[in-house]
Amino acid sequence: MTEKTRIGRLPERGVDDLATIQAILDEGLVCHVAYVVDGRPVVLPTLYARDGDRVLLHGSNSMGLARAVRGGSPLSVAVTHLDGVVVARSAFNSSANYRSVVIHGTGVILEGSEKDEALDTLVDRLIPGRLGDVRPSTVTEIRQTTVIALSLDEVSAKVRSGGPNDDEADLDLDTWAGVVPFFTVAGEPTPAQDLRPGIDIPDYLRSFRR
Amino acid sequence: MTEKTRIGRLPERGVDDLATIQAILDEGLVCHVAYVVDGRPVVLPTLYARDGDRVLLHGSNSMGLARAVRGGSPLSVAVTHLDGVVVARSAFNSSANYRSVVIHGTGVILEGSEKDEALDTLVDRLIPGRLGDVRPSTVTEIRQTTVIALSLDEVSAKVRSGGPNDDEADLDLDTWAGVVPFFTVAGEPTPAQDLRPGIDIPDYLRSFRR
Repeated sequence: MTEKTRIGRLPERGVDDLATIQAILDEGLVCHVAYVVDGRPVVLPTLYARDGDRVLLHGSNSMGLARAVRGGSPLSVAVTHLDGVVVARSAFNSSANYRSVVIHGTGVILEGSEKDEALDTLVDRLIPGRLGDVRPSTVTEIRQTTVIALSLDEVSAKVRSGGPNDDEADLDLDTWAGVVPFFTVAGEPTPAQDLRPGIDIPDYLRSFRR
Repeated sequence: MTEKTRIGRLPERGVDDLATIQAILDEGLVCHVAYVVDGRPVVLPTLYARDGDRVLLHGSNSMGLARAVRGGSPLSVAVTHLDGVVVARSAFNSSANYRSVVIHGTGVILEGSEKDEALDTLVDRLIPGRLGDVRPSTVTEIRQTTVIALSLDEVSAKVRSGGPNDDEADLDLDTWAGVVPFFTVAGEPTPAQDLRPGIDIPDYLRSFRR
């Protein structure tokens, strides 16, 4: 169960392999984006998707995030998957298994056809297969939505996997050590209460996996 | 499966109920903390635990976070649980079900007996039951660890639950709508490769739930 591969394990746990970074980004739906308002940090969760060498952040016009980007604030975006709790024989060596990517840069608010395409990309990445089933968005809906593009130029990843790294002297202790793995699973799709009878769950939702 | 309660649903989705905020915080292990360096935001994931009316953030001395707090940077901390994908008949009304808390404030780096107690609290909250089984931390280990306390004075929550809120005109479409729920589950604890034979998995890890 415990992963054997340890990429950039210690002391830095840093990963600069682009395929690893892309895989971590592609597994997530929600990122945490930080910006600066009057010298103070603000962090909030938002939906995102990777689109080639950039990420697309989904928001509404009223968000402070959109105002901050328009005002020139740089952004910092993190995507984190918690894979387990590492239970070592000491508190100090106890830890978490995780995969995380952090991106820094200046966001760009997309407009016009770039925005339309980015919105389609967001739907397609967040719910693969869905794009053909939703009705087209109206001009008003698109106007009320903000899409921010952030390049992956400045990106890094950290990965911690595997079992505890206990001190040699602790290995003789009568204490259990190991990992409690975590999994995120998608359950059976639940129909809306106002769903018309006779409409089946689409296959792309039955097989939804992240 | 879909939750019926909708707290602060729309338009703000805001929640100021302290019990809701505490429950969201107590369910998580990893938060995203943002700070400011030279006017730029930095966000990173870290382990945390709620301790009464504050959160304790776990770090190492070498972290930029510790430097930023020593330098007086305010903090913004978010804890987010993604509960599902809301699949509406339009892209615009599609969304995510989530529970999230954001805290703003100035962190305090704990020292001395306050730090010792906070480290015990972190272990006890992150892995309930574990505290009695780990060997005591050494002075050097405690010195290499940073614990930052952040008060819950300035805290808010957002909760989105329930099914899609489609436009009236979209209800006649031949399109499935509903929610794909997400669950995070803890798997069977995996022993360390160097675990001595004959040491059973403790009950508090078998029943680990978040």
